Amino acid sequence: MSRWAIGIDLGGTAIKAAAVGEERGIVISSSNLTDTASGPAGIVRQLAAIIADLYRSASLTNEPGDFAGVGLGVPGAVNAEQGTLSYPPNLPGWTIFPLRDELQLCLKEQEALSMTAFLDNDANAAAFGEAVYGAGRQFRDFLMVTLGTGVGGGIVLNRKIYRGANGTAGEVGFMIIDFEGSSVHAGIRGTLESLVGKKQMVELARRMIEASPSDSSVGILCGHDYTRLSPRHLERAALEGDEVSLAVWQRVGSILGVGLANVAALMDIRKFVIGGGISAAGSLIFEPALAQLKMSTLPSMHEGLELVPALLGNKAGIHGAAALCFG
Amino acid sequence: MSRWAIGIDLGGTAIKAAAVGEERGIVISSSNLTDTASGPAGIVRQLAAIIADLYRSASLTNEPGDFAGVGLGVPGAVNAEQGTLSYPPNLPGWTIFPLRDELQLCLKEQEALSMTAFLDNDANAAAFGEAVYGAGRQFRDFLMVTLGTGVGGGIVLNRKIYRGANGTAGEVGFMIIDFEGSSVHAGIRGTLESLVGKKQMVELARRMIEASPSDSSVGILCGHDYTRLSPRHLERAALEGDEVSLAVWQRVGSILGVGLANVAALMDIRKFVIGGGISAAGSLIFEPALAQLKMSTLPSMHEGLELVPALLGNKAGIHGAAALCFG
Repeated sequence: MSRWAIGIDLGGTAIKAAAVGEERGIVISSSNLTDTASGPAGIVRQLAAIIADLYRSASLTNEPGDFAGVGLGVPGAVNAEQGTLSYPPNLPGWTIFPLRDELQLCLKEQEALSMTAFLDNDANAAAFGEAVYGAGRQFRDFLMVTLGTGVGGGIVLNRKIYRGANGTAGEVGFMIIDFEGSSVHAGIRGTLESLVGKKQMVELARRMIEASPSDSSVGILCGHDYTRLSPRHLERAALEGDEVSLAVWQRVGSILGVGLANVAALMDIRKFVIGGGISAAGSLIFEPALAQLKMSTLPSMHEGLELVPALLGNKAGIHGAAALCFG
Repeated sequence: MSRWAIGIDLGGTAIKAAAVGEERGIVISSSNLTDTASGPAGIVRQLAAIIADLYRSASLTNEPGDFAGVGLGVPGAVNAEQGTLSYPPNLPGWTIFPLRDELQLCLKEQEALSMTAFLDNDANAAAFGEAVYGAGRQFRDFLMVTLGTGVGGGIVLNRKIYRGANGTAGEVGFMIIDFEGSSVHAGIRGTLESLVGKKQMVELARRMIEASPSDSSVGILCGHDYTRLSPRHLERAALEGDEVSLAVWQRVGSILGVGLANVAALMDIRKFVIGGGISAAGSLIFEPALAQLKMSTLPSMHEGLELVPALLGNKAGIHGAAALCFG
């Protein structure tokens, strides 16, 4: 037996999908722009069509009898048991929607396909993808942090997603590490996300460049137009030895380390898988993060502390969504 | 069948012990000064004698056949599986000690008693005591916070203690909420414990009283000797309407609320049982804590947020230790 499933990463911009073999990983994949204009019903129809296409293509080389279902990682609060998605911030017009049941119904009526659907939020799906296929395979318990526009998190305990009583666990970006600070995100002061999201990082860099007496090579890289400044510029400049850029990474890494220290203290989690665009900077961010993590925890918590880069990039969500079906 | 057990709360000052009925709670109890002078072996002998005494008294009215064992809540890092206690800060001269096995052996050799011993750290034992016999009975998942000299924590998930992979989970006092602040505890900057322990609270009060233009009635309560100032004085003064004291409680409650917000964001825990000396101030601390907790979390996390006072006082540990035997 060689089970396979379809994994979907439903985003506000694109729907990424793949047929995934339990052992082999991704077999076929597709990517489509999300049809946000027609609301939940429109997206359900679009999803059903994408799933049907993939299913039919993959069925040519995969036994339909080994098909385990379709899993979806979705951008919002999920009740995994009830199969509902609540208020996805990037999908306008949605409230609380029974996505699992509506999708199963549409697959049946529109595509004559009976299949079981599984739902989880995108951060949990990405963490589970790394747990089953990626950097988390070596860990029983870990936290996955995605450093991108925002700071996402997913917790894996005993190789399963830890969702919490209401399904909102893992919001590492909303941990407060600077409660009297000046940074605010989503109305909350001093959260990790208010300090190390992509925008905050660029803003920090701009302030540090302006305050620096020496010329930073970042200026040249972004054509002295700081509205174009990106983490990629800061990465290149730092690798060329630019001191301001190095200091920016040092600070972003340290702040991340403080956040991880809170996870270590509260949950006794000592393994961290770091993904997302900003994490591509590698040791520029990993080294200060690990150093700070050690400084910010008791010596009795140091054994086994480890930060590793995520392995699946933006395909972690598809992998994890499919893996929901093998559970 | 009516099971019973012996629960022990081993502290640096006293050994509190009780025979506890699974349904009836404490049947007989005792308290002895801890014999710290003779090191681990001396304490093991002392524990065995205390346990034997209690066992023999309780056996007169409880069926020996229903006896479930002896549970111990101990002040340090515990490996519950191996039954070891590591580096208890308040027991000088201890390193890593196989307390469970040594105690079982001593009970047999010294007292001719064969019984199974169970070990957990004192914060976990207190949380489990509240879970089984106290304020946590109504909750499946909760965090117990003990606000005393330090800030202790124990996590209950699905009515069981959550210990983490290495047994150090629940260290809520070591969560960092002010990473650039001036307060430091155990070498770590900006931890919750560095901000709301008893000493820190008194220090905050002294600073606020000195900075206040008006006379605070706290001065009268402590005879203007601020070295004698205690949370109890601040409680009395606040209840009499003293503005500085009210502001101190407001601030301590708010800081606690920030810490709890981190637990809600990360673990999706929304129920909090608050114990320890400082918590006796009741709504003086509970109201600002809950208000801040709501301000510091996303609206999607507000449903079901609840802070309740612990019910078992300094007997939570004994109850929880005994309950370890009924697991």
